Amino acid sequence: MTTQEIMQAAKAAAPALATLTTEKKNAVLRAMAAALTEDTEAILAANREDLAAAEGSIAPVMLDRLRLDPSRIAAMAEGILAVAALPDPVGHVLGTTERADGLRIERVSVPMGVIAIIYESRPNVTSDAAALAVKAGSACILRGGREAYRSSHAIVGSLRRGLEAEGLPRALVSAVEDVSRASALELMTGAGYIDLLIPRGSAGLIRTCVENARVPVIETGTGICHVYVDAAADEAMALSIVHNAKTSRPSVCNAAEVCLVDEKIAKSFLPKLKKVLVDDRLAEGKPPVELRLDPGAAALVDGTPAAETDFDTEFLDYVLAVRTVRGVEEAIAHIAAHSTGHSEAIVTGDEAAAARFVAAVDSAAVYVNASTRFTDGGEFGLGCEMGISTQKLHARGPMGLCELTSYKYVIRGNGHTR
Amino acid sequence: MTTQEIMQAAKAAAPALATLTTEKKNAVLRAMAAALTEDTEAILAANREDLAAAEGSIAPVMLDRLRLDPSRIAAMAEGILAVAALPDPVGHVLGTTERADGLRIERVSVPMGVIAIIYESRPNVTSDAAALAVKAGSACILRGGREAYRSSHAIVGSLRRGLEAEGLPRALVSAVEDVSRASALELMTGAGYIDLLIPRGSAGLIRTCVENARVPVIETGTGICHVYVDAAADEAMALSIVHNAKTSRPSVCNAAEVCLVDEKIAKSFLPKLKKVLVDDRLAEGKPPVELRLDPGAAALVDGTPAAETDFDTEFLDYVLAVRTVRGVEEAIAHIAAHSTGHSEAIVTGDEAAAARFVAAVDSAAVYVNASTRFTDGGEFGLGCEMGISTQKLHARGPMGLCELTSYKYVIRGNGHTR
Repeated sequence: MTTQEIMQAAKAAAPALATLTTEKKNAVLRAMAAALTEDTEAILAANREDLAAAEGSIAPVMLDRLRLDPSRIAAMAEGILAVAALPDPVGHVLGTTERADGLRIERVSVPMGVIAIIYESRPNVTSDAAALAVKAGSACILRGGREAYRSSHAIVGSLRRGLEAEGLPRALVSAVEDVSRASALELMTGAGYIDLLIPRGSAGLIRTCVENARVPVIETGTGICHVYVDAAADEAMALSIVHNAKTSRPSVCNAAEVCLVDEKIAKSFLPKLKKVLVDDRLAEGKPPVELRLDPGAAALVDGTPAAETDFDTEFLDYVLAVRTVRGVEEAIAHIAAHSTGHSEAIVTGDEAAAARFVAAVDSAAVYVNASTRFTDGGEFGLGCEMGISTQKLHARGPMGLCELTSYKYVIRGNGHTR
Repeated sequence: MTTQEIMQAAKAAAPALATLTTEKKNAVLRAMAAALTEDTEAILAANREDLAAAEGSIAPVMLDRLRLDPSRIAAMAEGILAVAALPDPVGHVLGTTERADGLRIERVSVPMGVIAIIYESRPNVTSDAAALAVKAGSACILRGGREAYRSSHAIVGSLRRGLEAEGLPRALVSAVEDVSRASALELMTGAGYIDLLIPRGSAGLIRTCVENARVPVIETGTGICHVYVDAAADEAMALSIVHNAKTSRPSVCNAAEVCLVDEKIAKSFLPKLKKVLVDDRLAEGKPPVELRLDPGAAALVDGTPAAETDFDTEFLDYVLAVRTVRGVEEAIAHIAAHSTGHSEAIVTGDEAAAARFVAAVDSAAVYVNASTRFTDGGEFGLGCEMGISTQKLHARGPMGLCELTSYKYVIRGNGHTR
């Protein structure tokens, strides 16, 4: 099918899902999980073809992200069952107004309709995204990475068997067949078919979507996250938070990329920071963190001199840009100029500084005395996540099932006219 | 100033407003209202120039929309004071999660930042929009119609005097100086400066924004609203509702444009509808409604044969397209194919039909036994309105102050790491 035909079919199928009961949606999800498990061998065979085709042309770390095995497929099926166990986000009365004249106005949560997701290589996103869309009552159109084409289509084939087993149209979960740029552009410009487009992946992918989309988009993921160590910080706490935010998983969007240090504490703090991030890690046989230092920091510890671009780069690696600042206001100004609006933290024992930082920093998640690594749907108690919004419209931060719904007003009268 | 400079200045000024107390914002609004009142003569003089320039080149109804007089300016000032009296939408804790490990996660409402509004000729939109933006904590950039250029700039000049009187930057409320298409395009593509763009006006304006915008947009206003008269309708109630929805104010977006009638009731109902909309109105000296009839309706009453386009046209006039349908499912299918997603109504005494219509019709406002004319921020109890969203992302239906805000997560720990 062409991408156009897939969009038409998804739009036509969506109403069948929008009004299902919670019980029926959960039965559908269980059938999808069962089909995925049954098809393990066929999915692994498709994945082996993807791996063979990609071998040598993509980096080993990417090849590992692409690789499936029985336990990863089992985890995908469990992920679908976990979504089935979450509360239904559709049909909640979000507000009620009863007017003096008896007209009753309710605001009720409803499905989006058709959600398109453009993502890069990990095949497990295919089943995660489909499960979230189905639970949220929306049809979905998935466009995964080219390298994972056969794996994603095999997974979607299984999910569709689950839909059919419950008597629902296959078109509720689709993967685009064309993985050229043309199909991505068709999704971005599919006004009238696509109610929401979510790009998940590199900054380049997200920029392309924002620049070309004629359909509503939620920008996700790019995270140049800052940790500001205030003059009133507990230094041991600050070391622990910066170490965790930088090194616990450097390839993810909520990892810290920049450490701002109040110059009043820098002389004491920075040598300790270098010890924790570089010397101790080397001694433990772990990858050390490369420090990219502004002149103020470079005067106090050894490291690489920072280029101007280092404060605007999502390293996603064991690299940390470090700058000294004159107090919380300069930290806030630096963040305003360089942040992607994802997650920022202050470490301080000064309540006034914390309050000022929280009020002035305009990011999805603002932390006081905690690591930026908590910005995650699971950690925030949403139970799941379709991505992390870095825009202000509709959803901000981790997007769970509620963030994948819209609402409508339902008004009941008895012949009311105006 | 160029539009680029205006956007830069607005972004730079926005933080000054974002963290103000409610009391201070209300004082600013009162100062804006006072300045507007004091400047009545100057605004009227500017308006006379606009009127003189527009005379002969725009329709009399548009000329009337452009015209200001002392009472209209007084109403604008009162509108600002009414916004001051509304609850502050910023700083509300929308949700709290306290984890077992003591990490406390709050979701807090925050301002958007910079809101751009592109609108057509009515000058009063200038002060309404500015007041709503200020109360919601956001800077605003206004681009009114070319015909109202002098009036809008005079109004913005007064509002800025009010800002200055309270010690705030003028750049919090700006009107673009260039009213060519170039300035609209600059706003639409002002990524990094504009957090939200709201077009208010014709379907053409809104389409241009959606097609060209690189910044988040909320589509507003276009309303092809339907009233479906079910077989189980109380005919007197249906007549009253259709008459009200069509004729009480035909130029507004929540007026009905299409009446769908169940064929089981059409033979009885349509002659009564024609009497109410045509014959009675003629007898009363009121403008009659032109009925554009599908073949099923044309077989039962006199009127104009409907062209296919009549079911996809926002007439904004005393014109009603009428079609007979085979029950609620055909009505739902017609609405799915032709509606703009604004407001639709069913008139019925059958609860099952009402429930099915409410569940299946995917519009911002769905009515049972009431006129579509209630879709309005004031009528819905929001106290005000920046426009009526017909999209599903972020806001749907009337947008009040809350719909002009975003949220962020504030997370407080005690050295928490992951």
